[in-house]
Amino acid sequence: MTRPKVDLTIVGSIGIDTIATPTARREEILGGSVSYACAAASFFTQTGMVGVVGTDFPAAFRQVWENMNIDLEGLQVEEGKTFRWSGVYEENMDNRTTLSTDLNVFENFSPELPDDYRDAPYLFLGNIHPALQLHVLEQVRNPKFILIDTMDLWINIDKEDLAKVIGKCHMLTLNESEARLFTGEQTLGKAAKQLLAMGPEYVLIKKGGNGSMLFTRHNVFLLHAYPLDSFEDPTGAGDTFAGGLMGALAASGRCDEDAIREAMLYGTITASFGVEEFSLDRLQRLSREEIEQRTAEFKEMCRI
Amino acid sequence: MTRPKVDLTIVGSIGIDTIATPTARREEILGGSVSYACAAASFFTQTGMVGVVGTDFPAAFRQVWENMNIDLEGLQVEEGKTFRWSGVYEENMDNRTTLSTDLNVFENFSPELPDDYRDAPYLFLGNIHPALQLHVLEQVRNPKFILIDTMDLWINIDKEDLAKVIGKCHMLTLNESEARLFTGEQTLGKAAKQLLAMGPEYVLIKKGGNGSMLFTRHNVFLLHAYPLDSFEDPTGAGDTFAGGLMGALAASGRCDEDAIREAMLYGTITASFGVEEFSLDRLQRLSREEIEQRTAEFKEMCRI
Repeated sequence: MTRPKVDLTIVGSIGIDTIATPTARREEILGGSVSYACAAASFFTQTGMVGVVGTDFPAAFRQVWENMNIDLEGLQVEEGKTFRWSGVYEENMDNRTTLSTDLNVFENFSPELPDDYRDAPYLFLGNIHPALQLHVLEQVRNPKFILIDTMDLWINIDKEDLAKVIGKCHMLTLNESEARLFTGEQTLGKAAKQLLAMGPEYVLIKKGGNGSMLFTRHNVFLLHAYPLDSFEDPTGAGDTFAGGLMGALAASGRCDEDAIREAMLYGTITASFGVEEFSLDRLQRLSREEIEQRTAEFKEMCRI
Repeated sequence: MTRPKVDLTIVGSIGIDTIATPTARREEILGGSVSYACAAASFFTQTGMVGVVGTDFPAAFRQVWENMNIDLEGLQVEEGKTFRWSGVYEENMDNRTTLSTDLNVFENFSPELPDDYRDAPYLFLGNIHPALQLHVLEQVRNPKFILIDTMDLWINIDKEDLAKVIGKCHMLTLNESEARLFTGEQTLGKAAKQLLAMGPEYVLIKKGGNGSMLFTRHNVFLLHAYPLDSFEDPTGAGDTFAGGLMGALAASGRCDEDAIREAMLYGTITASFGVEEFSLDRLQRLSREEIEQRTAEFKEMCRI
């Protein structure tokens, strides 16, 4: 059997973002879940991107991905404008408000996987409409491990399709407020039990600057975030975390709990670099050696 | 040299609390920082309580402490009423509002340590006026390790005295909002650096349900909270955490970073039991075996 072209396929949104934080503002920068996730995964494994951009998409942005050795065969270019998003962060950077969302070519996105991607053993279904996530699942052949992400919008408007696609995945990730919204449970342990009952073996709850929690039917794994002295922009942190995790997991060739725990460390550390600067600014000049060094430091911070 | 009567002295407030949560309400229950902290420490080491109650203090409350083998030689009984506090918790249990505070005999509290307590190697200065904390420090002889707690009130009205007493202690504990208030720094790493510069070797930042962070001049230790499926009342959780920590540390006879990391585990687990029910209801029928069992389970949850 020949080795597939990519070890990890990632599907998600590509956007051009305008972001204001309490101390800075950037216009028309590269963003989107699949952009952050692929960039993070690219440090660990051969990664293929599935997403859509408009004909206005800057060549320089495409070059950033190419420089990171991300496979772009799954990138669709459609007539029209690329998805735009604009948001502003509050003082403590914990909360943000969306100012505008222009779906543009993303509105009619239908993710089609190149034949080369369909045998990739690892798949990360980024946050898009659950019906589109189902459409991706119909295309893949014998995937070894599928991670699915989602958001409050789909929980609110299409819980049924969402439950259906979650039931076909190995791991679900969502943030703590989404876990509470989805289940109506206040404590995360109870929320995770409900979500595990929908089918996945693992539920990974993201808590932003407070870390993450991995639940299985029998175990819990608790991981802090890496404590940064300063950061510029938390946009895409969850996608960077999940992308780094999936990249490291794909590189390990495993999908057991111990391998996922280790991969969560790499996801955490990759995300800690990502938020240091806007867009992919920090990630595109990050080295694997820097990741390894901070990961070793982080392990010592968590040593009991 | 004879062994001191107690290994750990704890000074703080004693209150009779009326507490409302979204699902329950309790009137006139046993509370106060020194009550929670001594109860937690009593599982690990011989602990002496320094605090004040009024002549109205119920014999049944005193009996709870005696049953837990807490030494009460440092307990003062003054003519008048015991300190009363009343508060209500919001839906998510993260925020609470104080409805009333009646200092009563606590208003003129002057902590006097029995001679037997002055040689105790471990001292926990609970949250009282910094001038009173200084007064305690004048009474102790060659303490090995002193932990100091404080609150936003003293940061706002008497920062100078507070800085003076912190400079004489080995470890400072406060919660994340207090660390930010004290230093004006948003990130906890920067806040901790400022606080360490005031003199203590260790700064322990409490994050409630999100765990705790220990900072030294060279290292950071990150610890999650124990994930509970449900809990009744978070009142006193920080005091229970710190009391359990100091009890376990005193029992170890050490005060190095590794010993503090281990003691933080015990503090976390003792607090996780404490919040399961109101007041000392759960702690007074808790066994050391239950603590050890949950601590072992917790270690596995944090294993990388």
